[in-house]
Amino acid sequence: MTAPLGIHLLADLHGCEGLANPARIEAALRAAVSATGATLLNLQLHHFGPGQGVTGVALLAESHLSIHSWPEHGFAAIDIFLCGGADAGVALDIIAAALAATRIEAQRVARGAPFG
Amino acid sequence: MTAPLGIHLLADLHGCEGLANPARIEAALRAAVSATGATLLNLQLHHFGPGQGVTGVALLAESHLSIHSWPEHGFAAIDIFLCGGADAGVALDIIAAALAATRIEAQRVARGAPFG
Repeated sequence: MTAPLGIHLLADLHGCEGLANPARIEAALRAAVSATGATLLNLQLHHFGPGQGVTGVALLAESHLSIHSWPEHGFAAIDIFLCGGADAGVALDIIAAALAATRIEAQRVARGAPFG
Repeated sequence: MTAPLGIHLLADLHGCEGLANPARIEAALRAAVSATGATLLNLQLHHFGPGQGVTGVALLAESHLSIHSWPEHGFAAIDIFLCGGADAGVALDIIAAALAATRIEAQRVARGAPFG
């Protein structure tokens, strides 16, 4: 069996803090990207307004990392899609800690499984 | 049971054409976003060079749509993450047709399932 082209880690984070704070979220994303050793091509964040959610995507040479937050639920949806063998779990740990998540539901999906 | 906050459609497209053509991929992404009625906040594409892959993310008010392509394998990984009840399947059909995909492996993941 050949390796997949990439691993896509989907994580739902519950009980989070700071989800209406774009600076905190940007710092978490940058720290997570840095920890994986991935190459950041572009980072785009959008804040929907005071007290509201933040949505952001880091475009990587190795695919992408995204967050969508719902402060009213203490909930954030995280995607970490990395090609080339980088460890998505390290990035998730950093984001979960930065947002003080109390519960994480994560699943890994192999993308492009017949290749590599 | 309450509805999830969003539906995340992960699709692996095989047998594709045009995967080293950023203009074709950008047009497909814009048409897909438009068909869902989602609000486009930002579209970012990166082409790794002549004959090489394209990676791109459309940041939406309703979450995101992304593509990562491997022309050497005729393979593209698509993510369509939409909140608010928009139909991700319509977007996938448009992208798959635009890239002339011959095989699609798709799965839907409910995100933020306890909420909504």
